[in-house]
Amino acid sequence: MSAIDNLSTYFMKFPGIGTRQAKRFVYFLLAQDPRFVEELAREIALLKKSIAQCTMCFRFYPHLGGGSICDVCTSDTDTATLLVVEKDTDFESVRRSSSYAGKYFILGGTIPVLERDPASKIRIRELLTRIEQGAAEGLSEVILALSANPEGDFTREYVAKTLEPVLGQLGITLTTLGRGLSTGTELEYSDGDTLRHALKNRS
Amino acid sequence: MSAIDNLSTYFMKFPGIGTRQAKRFVYFLLAQDPRFVEELAREIALLKKSIAQCTMCFRFYPHLGGGSICDVCTSDTDTATLLVVEKDTDFESVRRSSSYAGKYFILGGTIPVLERDPASKIRIRELLTRIEQGAAEGLSEVILALSANPEGDFTREYVAKTLEPVLGQLGITLTTLGRGLSTGTELEYSDGDTLRHALKNRS
Repeated sequence: MSAIDNLSTYFMKFPGIGTRQAKRFVYFLLAQDPRFVEELAREIALLKKSIAQCTMCFRFYPHLGGGSICDVCTSDTDTATLLVVEKDTDFESVRRSSSYAGKYFILGGTIPVLERDPASKIRIRELLTRIEQGAAEGLSEVILALSANPEGDFTREYVAKTLEPVLGQLGITLTTLGRGLSTGTELEYSDGDTLRHALKNRS
Repeated sequence: MSAIDNLSTYFMKFPGIGTRQAKRFVYFLLAQDPRFVEELAREIALLKKSIAQCTMCFRFYPHLGGGSICDVCTSDTDTATLLVVEKDTDFESVRRSSSYAGKYFILGGTIPVLERDPASKIRIRELLTRIEQGAAEGLSEVILALSANPEGDFTREYVAKTLEPVLGQLGITLTTLGRGLSTGTELEYSDGDTLRHALKNRS
């Protein structure tokens, strides 16, 4: 197998990349300046060394030689709320919006509707531990910020049911993001479910 | 800028990759086994060293310490025909089909219809040199195997017009791939242009 085919098989494992695009990536690299390719290789090799996974919220963060807990978890922001998101990019979206000031938790996935072992797909045990730990620091509300689609709904239900006894015991409220019209949505093209939520949550 | 953003900017330069997918690639790598990431970095770093560009046909080929001409150009296959394709993957498609046994030339692109400096987009000077060189070895036909779309048509016209005097002088024929129904095409969904070609080239 040539170096072209070899590198292609690596790119084919990337999310959303098929045989053709993987090959296109390799030929793209071959056509680049050698410096670009060298720097890319170096950045990839360095990635795991400079980025760590926070043991408290499970997000990836720049590891500057400090502890194993990220800057957001160690910061002295509001400890009363914990926002649970599916993945790192969701965390980034919320941060960018500057609409939330509390703590975070990365669930690490959603649960497919027919999944037999839901606990294997998300960090549910880790979330329970985080909530118990948070209770000692004044946690009063867990916000489930998952996608508004069937898999997100199913995951929300599973998490809610699993957390219920512990949350009840600790006196912590569980909430989810409000549903309605997204900004820029035209009424004409809105689905029935969105309109139902928008009417119910009118203000 | 963190290592995550930094690596993202590299992936954003890949063909067809936007901001979101570049980020997704980085988080995908962070979630992988460290060995996978290390091997990927090594493969990328090695790529340029193990693959060379043939100075005769301009395709990328595994460089095993030999000369600067690839195995297909040095092989003793038919030197009477030269197949001109746009890019390396087109060369691979033709090779895989086992439908052609002659020599190849990678044009390196096509010419956008409104391009002011067509010669800068393709290897037209290199093709002329290759043809003159081929004439000495019995080259009798140059086959333009470009895409059947407006840009391919425009490039074909430009190449044909540019090569005309030289080919005439050397007594070399210029042909293009036959047009008609692609295998699997349903007549019902064929466009007028395809049907016109299919009727004209009936056999």
